[in-house]
Amino acid sequence: MICKNIGINEKGHLTFAGRDTVELAAKYGTPLYLLDEERVRENCRVYKNALSRELGEASLPLYAGKALCVKDVYRIMREEKMGIDVVSCGEIFTAWSAGFPMENAYFHGNNKTDEDVRFAFEKGVGCFVCDNEEELCAIEREAAERNTVQKVLIRVAPGIDPHTHKAISTGSIDSKFGTAIETGQAMELVSLALSKKHVALAGLHCHIGSQIFETQPFCDAADIMLRFMAEIKKEMGCTLTELNLGGGIGVRYLESHPEIDVDGYITEVAAHIKSAAKALSFPLPAIRLEPGRSIVADAGMTLYSAGAVKRIPGFKNYLSVDGGMADNPRYALYQSPYTVEIANKMNEEKTFVCTVAGRCCESGDMIQENVPLPEPERGDTVAVCTTGAYNYAMASNYNRLPRPPMITLTANGEHIAVKRESLEDLIRNEL
Amino acid sequence: MICKNIGINEKGHLTFAGRDTVELAAKYGTPLYLLDEERVRENCRVYKNALSRELGEASLPLYAGKALCVKDVYRIMREEKMGIDVVSCGEIFTAWSAGFPMENAYFHGNNKTDEDVRFAFEKGVGCFVCDNEEELCAIEREAAERNTVQKVLIRVAPGIDPHTHKAISTGSIDSKFGTAIETGQAMELVSLALSKKHVALAGLHCHIGSQIFETQPFCDAADIMLRFMAEIKKEMGCTLTELNLGGGIGVRYLESHPEIDVDGYITEVAAHIKSAAKALSFPLPAIRLEPGRSIVADAGMTLYSAGAVKRIPGFKNYLSVDGGMADNPRYALYQSPYTVEIANKMNEEKTFVCTVAGRCCESGDMIQENVPLPEPERGDTVAVCTTGAYNYAMASNYNRLPRPPMITLTANGEHIAVKRESLEDLIRNEL
Repeated sequence: MICKNIGINEKGHLTFAGRDTVELAAKYGTPLYLLDEERVRENCRVYKNALSRELGEASLPLYAGKALCVKDVYRIMREEKMGIDVVSCGEIFTAWSAGFPMENAYFHGNNKTDEDVRFAFEKGVGCFVCDNEEELCAIEREAAERNTVQKVLIRVAPGIDPHTHKAISTGSIDSKFGTAIETGQAMELVSLALSKKHVALAGLHCHIGSQIFETQPFCDAADIMLRFMAEIKKEMGCTLTELNLGGGIGVRYLESHPEIDVDGYITEVAAHIKSAAKALSFPLPAIRLEPGRSIVADAGMTLYSAGAVKRIPGFKNYLSVDGGMADNPRYALYQSPYTVEIANKMNEEKTFVCTVAGRCCESGDMIQENVPLPEPERGDTVAVCTTGAYNYAMASNYNRLPRPPMITLTANGEHIAVKRESLEDLIRNEL
Repeated sequence: MICKNIGINEKGHLTFAGRDTVELAAKYGTPLYLLDEERVRENCRVYKNALSRELGEASLPLYAGKALCVKDVYRIMREEKMGIDVVSCGEIFTAWSAGFPMENAYFHGNNKTDEDVRFAFEKGVGCFVCDNEEELCAIEREAAERNTVQKVLIRVAPGIDPHTHKAISTGSIDSKFGTAIETGQAMELVSLALSKKHVALAGLHCHIGSQIFETQPFCDAADIMLRFMAEIKKEMGCTLTELNLGGGIGVRYLESHPEIDVDGYITEVAAHIKSAAKALSFPLPAIRLEPGRSIVADAGMTLYSAGAVKRIPGFKNYLSVDGGMADNPRYALYQSPYTVEIANKMNEEKTFVCTVAGRCCESGDMIQENVPLPEPERGDTVAVCTTGAYNYAMASNYNRLPRPPMITLTANGEHIAVKRESLEDLIRNEL
């Protein structure tokens, strides 16, 4: 199966985290997001254990909440003693509301407003990942007013192209994120940060992209960043102690994708970092990684009900479901691959090749194309796997569709993490 | 200027519906959606007057609410005596909550659930635009149970390619929408509908695509649909009396786009319809058009505040704003064009060519590329024009950003149509 937490039971039904998905769909209705808590925990532990084993206790993975930002996930992050990466007041507020210790939060973003900076101080966010000069000045102003010193990393564009989808490749020089080493602008920002009284520059951050399956881009990024840290030491006399390499380790969406051994991956990158630091005679910095997708993607699944089945002779087949780009816009945005199953027909032969279409009045509203399925009928339960990341997080009310609920499946039971939106919710803010 | 309701005042500020946009941004905060009520009304009247003048009182434009579905817009539609096109329980509920007379609503969608069908009956939706056999059976079941007869149109794929963006081209045979004439499936569905006791088949519907600037595709569609209606008359002995040609008349987003004379457009298509019906000796059906974008697009504007300004030597410039793909995902989805201005610098020379980037932690989060602007600074008011359609409607909370408010600018004043989402709103449904 595509994920470790997926199976088939004696009724021929798809199981997720050991539960019969057809029963869950009947119990909670569709569309429905499922979250496998134990899978989230295991994914955290792989990162946490590998990092501390290979790079010492000072290293820490930060969960990138933009992948799935709900209180219930921050509860798990708190219990697993993960750090987090937040990108807005909304994410800060959600984590804080879940009792997450905000000193372990890193505040990201290419365009923090003055209000964002103020709110982050108020809630005690531990570290700003400073993107640009305007932000650095805003942090300095706010810290001065509060008579405090704020820990900061500077986001650097290392100029790496991880050969991935353009829209999610963020480490190259031509980017809205950070400042480039090559143009000299990163060094200028470092210098400016070191001149600020109320800013404590602890280190650097970079993020080279998403869905990276090879270790080489991370090793290359680490090389560039460590060399830059050595240069800063030489030029500015300041030894930075923290290196945040961002996120981006790939996730398996299709059987044809490689299985990722995250522990092995980190071990390999860690060995490279240690030898690179040694070669530069630079003290090994505390390493941060920022996994988002690889913490929650395979802990998520979406269930739909099948509706219209169309066979267009000479063209193709369509199966429409009761959700679509409103709850999962990633195919519309990026033609992202997903594995689709008919949960109540797992042992039947897949003879119906079709486009799985959403219900929105928009041609681009598709879940996936060229999907082999058993012959579908209205009422079947359609499961889309590996939807834990960037599905609920990116969901809209397009076509005025209420957002689906999320059910957390725990070791001992299940609970509602997010209630289904009601029709009243849709007009709640209208006057 | 790009739209009729845009100007520059004596302060060199951008005006919208006669108001100073810089003052509106200061008063309500950013990001901010504006809606020009008078512009919405005028757009409605152009459609309404042209249709009734050219094709008689029985013809009616239906506002396609998926473009912008809020109660305040349905209030205007009610007052302007427009029909509406709805696509979900959420849209039905919103229109109904605004007191819209639901007998003038047409219910669309490729995948209506049994629950949708029931809800539409409950709220008294006037007509179903039936997409497929499963839906037809669900309508028949529900109508039989209520001992009533339901008016229905059948959605037909006429097989027209209006040479527009693939993702919004919906009239071709290979589509999740409707049934094709060419494959014989449309005739089968018509025949099935005529056999149902509780279904009153009134006519046909088609929708050939979006952003169509020529009249030819509409005339072609009308020809095909009228010929099919004549064939139905011949084969089934039934004279259908309503033809719904859908939406799709183009909207001007850039100076380089043509200005659309909707009145002239309808006059030309109407003349063609009349002569085509005459040539077929088929009685002129009541015509429906379904404008969405061309009713609200130029009645909308989005205001942002400028944040980080980046000059990357040898590459390009970036201006980041305090919104982005969360409030306007159309560039991320379709690379849709928009005109961007710095509202407080309308008389300054445009010497800064840049990518206007959103604030989301996603490389694909852009508002527009290659935009010539005056030299921007943090705090400037950035206006994106023609955002009335598919902006608020498609907005998400991605990166946990609260959705902006919408201010309706009326003839005599202004009011809040939609309040700004609060941080508390973001976690309201979390348990």
